[in-house]
Amino acid sequence: MNEMGLIMKIIQMVGYKDSGKTTLINYFIEAFNKDNYRVATIKHHGHGGQPLGIENTDSETNRQAGAVASAVEGDGLLQLSLNKNNISIENILFFYQQLAMDFVFIEGYKKIPFPKILLIKDQAEIALLEEIEKTVCILDRNETISSSLNIPVFHHAEELLSYLKADLTQFADF
Amino acid sequence: MNEMGLIMKIIQMVGYKDSGKTTLINYFIEAFNKDNYRVATIKHHGHGGQPLGIENTDSETNRQAGAVASAVEGDGLLQLSLNKNNISIENILFFYQQLAMDFVFIEGYKKIPFPKILLIKDQAEIALLEEIEKTVCILDRNETISSSLNIPVFHHAEELLSYLKADLTQFADF
Repeated sequence: MNEMGLIMKIIQMVGYKDSGKTTLINYFIEAFNKDNYRVATIKHHGHGGQPLGIENTDSETNRQAGAVASAVEGDGLLQLSLNKNNISIENILFFYQQLAMDFVFIEGYKKIPFPKILLIKDQAEIALLEEIEKTVCILDRNETISSSLNIPVFHHAEELLSYLKADLTQFADF
Repeated sequence: MNEMGLIMKIIQMVGYKDSGKTTLINYFIEAFNKDNYRVATIKHHGHGGQPLGIENTDSETNRQAGAVASAVEGDGLLQLSLNKNNISIENILFFYQQLAMDFVFIEGYKKIPFPKILLIKDQAEIALLEEIEKTVCILDRNETISSSLNIPVFHHAEELLSYLKADLTQFADF
């Protein structure tokens, strides 16, 4: 339990490339931030390749020399680089818990078992529903879904946010 | 205690800019790595400004939206960015402990209370000895020290490494 007396709450955003996952997460961060919650994120870099901007840094030379983890601090920001085979999503969640986070938004990682918001751009993408578990609701910005589904479908991020805030048990506890 | 049955060991490298701290740390990483130890680093980015290479990344947009922490994974590397005022060196060390690290090399942070190796480029820099606590030994690559001191002075990284490996109690336990 963290400073707000709240168990850390986790939810995932899942969808194809350009479905608006990062935009939705940024919208959620701002909204929960306004309520003074501490928010953290975990993202799977889906485009292939390593996260941008790590070449030629000292932390990268540490890593090439064989360091499993390196942290660099400067000007109010701390950046930690770790070899993925030495760390799990759970390690990161424990770390976030230690840092008293209230909410964690996870982008991608279709296979991990947290409640999910599915973002779709067109009707065909609803097929993703079959591939993933624990879908809480769908964000269908283009109003592309014509069939009726067993879970709530929203067309605007604002409605989706209100729906989730009204019942935080829709998030996973950690 | 970690997988090797060893308490996590910490030592700092302190010295002015261009005194060879990063080079020494990379040398140590390789040496301890060869012995199958898990090594991590923490660096204070002394040149001013934020660590390089974070602009225009999704994790940076998360941070600008108000996220306290953001993690991005891709291709075997995980990169975590945190607002410094929400995290302490101790938080990072606890995280490293959770990841079963054997050795942590810290670059910079003159004021924190771990054993230190002082690197100097010229005689005048010995003045740093007065400013810092818990100096274990000095690396004086240019053989610039003429006065006699109460602590060991080495001219080569190899000798320094042997000296430390022969007695690991010279590192701090965590």
